Amino acid sequence: MSFRIEHDTMGEVQVPADKYWGAQTERSRNNFKIGPEGSMPKEIIHAFGYLKKAAALANTELGVLSAEKAELIAKACDEIIAGQLDDQFPLVIWQTGSGTQSNMNGNEVIANRAHVINGGALADDKKVLHPNDDVNKSQSSNDTYPTAMHIAAYKLTVENTIPGLEKLRNALAKKVEEFSSIVKTGRTHFMDATPLTLGQEFSGYVQQIDNSIRAIKNALVMVAELALGGTAVGTGLNTPKGYDVLVAQKIADLTGLPFVTAPNKFEALAAHDAMVELSGALKRTAVALMKVANDVRMLSSGPRCGIGEIVIPDNEPGSSIMPGKVNPTQPEALTMVCAQVMGNDVAVSIGGMSGHFELNVFKPLIAANVLQSARLIGDACVSFTDKCAEGITANLPEIEKHLQNSLMLVTALNPHVGYENAAKIAKKAHKENKTLKAAAVELGLLTNEQFDEWVRPEDMVGSLK
Amino acid sequence: MSFRIEHDTMGEVQVPADKYWGAQTERSRNNFKIGPEGSMPKEIIHAFGYLKKAAALANTELGVLSAEKAELIAKACDEIIAGQLDDQFPLVIWQTGSGTQSNMNGNEVIANRAHVINGGALADDKKVLHPNDDVNKSQSSNDTYPTAMHIAAYKLTVENTIPGLEKLRNALAKKVEEFSSIVKTGRTHFMDATPLTLGQEFSGYVQQIDNSIRAIKNALVMVAELALGGTAVGTGLNTPKGYDVLVAQKIADLTGLPFVTAPNKFEALAAHDAMVELSGALKRTAVALMKVANDVRMLSSGPRCGIGEIVIPDNEPGSSIMPGKVNPTQPEALTMVCAQVMGNDVAVSIGGMSGHFELNVFKPLIAANVLQSARLIGDACVSFTDKCAEGITANLPEIEKHLQNSLMLVTALNPHVGYENAAKIAKKAHKENKTLKAAAVELGLLTNEQFDEWVRPEDMVGSLK
Amino acid sequence: MSFRIEHDTMGEVQVPADKYWGAQTERSRNNFKIGPEGSMPKEIIHAFGYLKKAAALANTELGVLSAEKAELIAKACDEIIAGQLDDQFPLVIWQTGSGTQSNMNGNEVIANRAHVINGGALADDKKVLHPNDDVNKSQSSNDTYPTAMHIAAYKLTVENTIPGLEKLRNALAKKVEEFSSIVKTGRTHFMDATPLTLGQEFSGYVQQIDNSIRAIKNALVMVAELALGGTAVGTGLNTPKGYDVLVAQKIADLTGLPFVTAPNKFEALAAHDAMVELSGALKRTAVALMKVANDVRMLSSGPRCGIGEIVIPDNEPGSSIMPGKVNPTQPEALTMVCAQVMGNDVAVSIGGMSGHFELNVFKPLIAANVLQSARLIGDACVSFTDKCAEGITANLPEIEKHLQNSLMLVTALNPHVGYENAAKIAKKAHKENKTLKAAAVELGLLTNEQFDEWVRPEDMVGSLK
Amino acid sequence: MSFRIEHDTMGEVQVPADKYWGAQTERSRNNFKIGPEGSMPKEIIHAFGYLKKAAALANTELGVLSAEKAELIAKACDEIIAGQLDDQFPLVIWQTGSGTQSNMNGNEVIANRAHVINGGALADDKKVLHPNDDVNKSQSSNDTYPTAMHIAAYKLTVENTIPGLEKLRNALAKKVEEFSSIVKTGRTHFMDATPLTLGQEFSGYVQQIDNSIRAIKNALVMVAELALGGTAVGTGLNTPKGYDVLVAQKIADLTGLPFVTAPNKFEALAAHDAMVELSGALKRTAVALMKVANDVRMLSSGPRCGIGEIVIPDNEPGSSIMPGKVNPTQPEALTMVCAQVMGNDVAVSIGGMSGHFELNVFKPLIAANVLQSARLIGDACVSFTDKCAEGITANLPEIEKHLQNSLMLVTALNPHVGYENAAKIAKKAHKENKTLKAAAVELGLLTNEQFDEWVRPEDMVGSLK
Repeated sequence: MSFRIEHDTMGEVQVPADKYWGAQTERSRNNFKIGPEGSMPKEIIHAFGYLKKAAALANTELGVLSAEKAELIAKACDEIIAGQLDDQFPLVIWQTGSGTQSNMNGNEVIANRAHVINGGALADDKKVLHPNDDVNKSQSSNDTYPTAMHIAAYKLTVENTIPGLEKLRNALAKKVEEFSSIVKTGRTHFMDATPLTLGQEFSGYVQQIDNSIRAIKNALVMVAELALGGTAVGTGLNTPKGYDVLVAQKIADLTGLPFVTAPNKFEALAAHDAMVELSGALKRTAVALMKVANDVRMLSSGPRCGIGEIVIPDNEPGSSIMPGKVNPTQPEALTMVCAQVMGNDVAVSIGGMSGHFELNVFKPLIAANVLQSARLIGDACVSFTDKCAEGITANLPEIEKHLQNSLMLVTALNPHVGYENAAKIAKKAHKENKTLKAAAVELGLLTNEQFDEWVRPEDMVGSLK
Repeated sequence: MSFRIEHDTMGEVQVPADKYWGAQTERSRNNFKIGPEGSMPKEIIHAFGYLKKAAALANTELGVLSAEKAELIAKACDEIIAGQLDDQFPLVIWQTGSGTQSNMNGNEVIANRAHVINGGALADDKKVLHPNDDVNKSQSSNDTYPTAMHIAAYKLTVENTIPGLEKLRNALAKKVEEFSSIVKTGRTHFMDATPLTLGQEFSGYVQQIDNSIRAIKNALVMVAELALGGTAVGTGLNTPKGYDVLVAQKIADLTGLPFVTAPNKFEALAAHDAMVELSGALKRTAVALMKVANDVRMLSSGPRCGIGEIVIPDNEPGSSIMPGKVNPTQPEALTMVCAQVMGNDVAVSIGGMSGHFELNVFKPLIAANVLQSARLIGDACVSFTDKCAEGITANLPEIEKHLQNSLMLVTALNPHVGYENAAKIAKKAHKENKTLKAAAVELGLLTNEQFDEWVRPEDMVGSLK
Repeated sequence: MSFRIEHDTMGEVQVPADKYWGAQTERSRNNFKIGPEGSMPKEIIHAFGYLKKAAALANTELGVLSAEKAELIAKACDEIIAGQLDDQFPLVIWQTGSGTQSNMNGNEVIANRAHVINGGALADDKKVLHPNDDVNKSQSSNDTYPTAMHIAAYKLTVENTIPGLEKLRNALAKKVEEFSSIVKTGRTHFMDATPLTLGQEFSGYVQQIDNSIRAIKNALVMVAELALGGTAVGTGLNTPKGYDVLVAQKIADLTGLPFVTAPNKFEALAAHDAMVELSGALKRTAVALMKVANDVRMLSSGPRCGIGEIVIPDNEPGSSIMPGKVNPTQPEALTMVCAQVMGNDVAVSIGGMSGHFELNVFKPLIAANVLQSARLIGDACVSFTDKCAEGITANLPEIEKHLQNSLMLVTALNPHVGYENAAKIAKKAHKENKTLKAAAVELGLLTNEQFDEWVRPEDMVGSLK
Repeated sequence: MSFRIEHDTMGEVQVPADKYWGAQTERSRNNFKIGPEGSMPKEIIHAFGYLKKAAALANTELGVLSAEKAELIAKACDEIIAGQLDDQFPLVIWQTGSGTQSNMNGNEVIANRAHVINGGALADDKKVLHPNDDVNKSQSSNDTYPTAMHIAAYKLTVENTIPGLEKLRNALAKKVEEFSSIVKTGRTHFMDATPLTLGQEFSGYVQQIDNSIRAIKNALVMVAELALGGTAVGTGLNTPKGYDVLVAQKIADLTGLPFVTAPNKFEALAAHDAMVELSGALKRTAVALMKVANDVRMLSSGPRCGIGEIVIPDNEPGSSIMPGKVNPTQPEALTMVCAQVMGNDVAVSIGGMSGHFELNVFKPLIAANVLQSARLIGDACVSFTDKCAEGITANLPEIEKHLQNSLMLVTALNPHVGYENAAKIAKKAHKENKTLKAAAVELGLLTNEQFDEWVRPEDMVGSLK
């Protein structure tokens, strides 16, 4: 491999000759060999593209950077945003907690790439842009990294997480309609209970997802606030007047998302409560999805020795040893994702609580976990919808068999014979393995006709709405 | 101890003669000897007082319960709400996961107490009210317990948690004003950084708490939704028409809080995402408070070998062996509370994800943890404010000493000499243990006069706002 | 209420006249009104009884405390150990993170109680013992509190947690024998699978509990190490030579438990990894018990619309609205306990990671959570065993019905017809709702006789012991 | 792209023509587009190499597979173990919870690769090996995946995690020696306390790591137990007699690690408590390392406004805006890793608790998180040691300044003047900003000579070795 020499304030460093990164990136590569290379999320890298471009434009507009330099920076940034320079970002999550090295990775790649775009060569001693004085102008890692984190998290959430949730929500809502007149036995404590419709059962899932989306949107309001303009400690040192508001506006324009400058930059650097809150909303969503996915797999259990009231699509052979086995693999993938999101939330919370004074230095950890959670929920919802939820059908014979057998239909008799007599009927039927009707009549508590009039499952599902 | 005989649908049970509870409560006492007796939170008991009264009133208004019975129920409930019957609720958190036994504890105590209020005796064979048919009319444990949970959580949050947070927020906001012109060294990565004012530093804390309160209020919107009216599985079986809306209105009237009926009762019984979300908001608050409390203890560290930029009140002897020692005990109590709240959130989330079909049976666990978190945050904020935050003063000599020594003042030179030259100055000063000015002048990068003009800490804190 | 005046190094304090506690306890009561009064676990208070007595005896033996004083201290400590002075310990968990105030609560109560035992009066100006110079001699809160924590945790674990687990383990082991020849359908992915015996199924639970006990015992090895003798920062300042070893020996003698002095006192004060490890072992146990309890409730589900292969005892009416309902309430209590223990572990871990320099100041939080976890697991296991596990019976008709229906018996044909042909048989039987035998013969893959010879559930459970 | 047709029991599938995988792998690729492709950990893939080879050898030895087939399988497995076929494993973590599809990915790749090794072509209709009947012989995903999980976790832990911890432990132990005579001020509650040596302070870290290694080794004892031989539900259906013991022995031979067959296969399939326990041990290690890393960064804080008692290596420019800034980047990376491991442990625990009946279907989640934790701890310890711990030096002037100023030296006077008088001295010195000696003498409690004799920091660090 051939190298060129780059330098920073600590001296010279050998860098692979064909890479756009510089001395500080190379130092970090060598100093932090922790986990797989390049683990810093690509969403963060692309977000740096937006913010560096926005900063250059704002700097020019405010008279502290030449238009020529800004244009060069913008061109390099466009390539980053388009993902064309992903392989120029080799750094890992487990670096400095401020993400300084990834900020410098961005500065160096932009400066060098711009130099090449401008007709220069990587080996040139003198470059058209300085990574700190030009590309990083009016910025500090301390405000750029959290800004990139917010841009990436907001973007991924609205482009992947929420659409995934909405897709699943809509598929389930269709099932609510489709199953609206299928009366089935309810189950509480995993035990037989009074009836409801299968559509009602699914309507609870829809409500859970609706509420989850609402919670995520609430959290995004804070994520829309950007730290940029706070620079080193939140005071905005070395920024031109009006910069913070303007640069947030530029980012909003470039991304088409409602970003604004954070009202308090000290909070925005020293705490990442907005990310903790978003992680909490994703965790709350995972809690909801875990319930939905568990219900689906349990309702579809069998085919002959389980509950078996719904049938889910059969996507692949389920077992390497048991021929013909079908398993609820999509619910399984989704519940594993939910467990991951719940664990990630703890990591994020520990990171979030650990800031000191003017800076939280668990930024890459927080970013990586929130982004993974957002990605996994979105992807898993799409997969679960396409390969499972949309194909769910009701297993009417099983549903009917369970419904007719359920002793809890006796509850309909409470207003007629009282709770204690009703209990006697249910207990007798259970003990003597009889129908409720037979038990009730034998006890002399009512007639066959009264039973038929009073105990009608289809009348037991409707007093609400 | 003397006993009387009570019965339920399973037969007879001996109950302490002077207690209002009945057979099912006594069974639960004997069946669940787990942890200290009476651990079911009192807030839940009192909330049952509100809801049982509201249900009786609604039942009467809708024509399914006599006014006389409703009045008796209401009287007993008023005593529960007032805390006068706390000793009649001996059950533990660790019972059936639906809280059925605490619901029955309420039903039995109300029925028996009402009987006595009505002039009867506990030993009477026949009572004026039946715990199931009258007191529990139009209800199921499955909808009453989550309703009690929401009432208790909402009430405690608005009466204890939020006022505690606001008190702390306001005390800190006063410090922002008080400290607005004290320029001090900033710290990032726990290392010296560019200056800010002590007021700015505290303003970050205020913002963190403001955002926390906002998050809690967002979560309360869902907690205001009540399950009551769903009865056994969410269908509202055995409730009169219009009952769910009316009973929520009654609870709102009795509590003065904005409760409404839940839009989907299936979700409201089978999932407790609203409580998970509230727990998440409390956890996010704990994350914020952890940062604030850690900063306070670290800033006040010393008195002679620490950072020592602020002084906190000296409330008690700090050590049993080190004479004269003063410790940041209020921050410590607060950070312990924060750790507890973070752990509670995991317990709540695991409980929340574990519902099946029509019912979540981790209700008492969820309730107990959310209520403990809400209580501890509120109480700890009051304690921390009264005994610590309000008494914080600035230690001006230390602040001044640190500020003058800080090498990071060099950052003000970036626009004048560039990042790399500025780095040379800082490194030389550090290595040779000199002032920045001396190093800068020796390097020939600027004059004494330029240094004095360009490096003015008081000018480095102000470009924002 | 009447008061007397007590003083400490900060001045005078009014104390309730009839209480044994002194100035510092009273200060703490007033300074920390967080959560319910007296929440500091009683196990910690009693452990202080052991250690203060042990310290007095060791001090006397090493010549730094008179035998008379030691004897008085010992007498007061015996009352603490016996629980007779529980009401003299009003402090809360949420105090100073070193537990100094509870250490001083102990010192003050012992000094004052000893004075009264010695014939003095609480109002006397001059007391026979000084709380710091005598009762706390050769001690600091920094080494006493962690010592009390270890004593309490070790004792509770071996007296409550492990016996509870062993009781459950043994009850389940009996079921393994009892159910050893009941062949039933297995379930993987919640779906029908190849058969096993009900005894084999239960043997997995026994193994899980055995492994949990082993893990807890591994963790106790570290908990047996005591910090006492480290005093303020771990150096043992102000202790006589040989004191640390001797006082640990005294504690071992008094408790009958294998306590030893910690090999490194700096670690023992500054970190509570031993408690974190014990909490982790309890969490791991909770994870195991969650699986066992879930299986029990799911296997017993029904009675007519569930899996219903076992029957559990019917301990109480299950529903306030559904007459005759029986619920798996003991499994529910146990699973709620497990969720709590899992949350507590996070709180403990956050506390454990947060020590700085020579002291961890999350001690009471750590102690309270570990003790609650240990208590709840022990109690819940006893309850679950007595009221549920011992009474489990097999529901043979359901088991037989499921077994005969299971399509996964086809797996026995793999060695005879190959995986792909076996799959064809299972799929045909499923699709056409036929028996495996009919499908197999129709496909011409084998004869009726071959099927009967090759597919024998009782032969499919046995290649492993 | 060109394709070939593969089939499984569900029919035909188009597979990329040049890939070794077959129909089931391709189905999974298409069915589970969740997160980045190929996320199933490579350690799991390689572990499958060991176990498939071992199974083939055992099958041959027990007479159920021809030697020729076993040899072919072994050859393909050797390539997998060597990492040469990594690009043939495109599946993700978020698939079926049994890992069936990764097991089949292994079976298909081995069968097809062996066919090619044997001179065949991928496009051949008939292959020399059948993925289920030959490669998967005597196996089920249900026992292979957990076996692969244990092999991978054990191997990574002993090859990466423990060596990393030992390296750090040894580097710190050298510092204990190096710093053994440097007396410095202690700090408790982040406040000045009595002195200790810097070596003593570091000795606590060494003890923490020693205990962590011990805990990990305890956990590995269970991880050494392998599920293989249990097949579908733990009964060992379709395995030859003696197979489970033999195959574990083969794996032990191939890996050089002490694997044995699990004593209870039902537990080994249905629960992954051994992995939960290992995760808990790694979490406990993270808790310990968090404390160590925090101490290092706080002790090195400054350079002029912090604690500054140690100096850590200066590896890279610390700030993109503050010239000359040096930050504790290695401690930061390590603490972020610790937070991740703590979050992972929650994910693993939730997965671990969620098994039902004969199978836990959170296997890939559990595997991925444990492996990430093991990898990150090992790597981060090496990085922290090489780039930070080994280069730590004492900052003697700061240490000496703090030591001489500390008011807590007064503790040495307790045995001479009593706790209360000593407190008076400290308070007077603090209030009047004097030395302890001046205050003591002014109070008339002792002479200058007595002070000099009694208060000698170097004598205050020594009663414990």
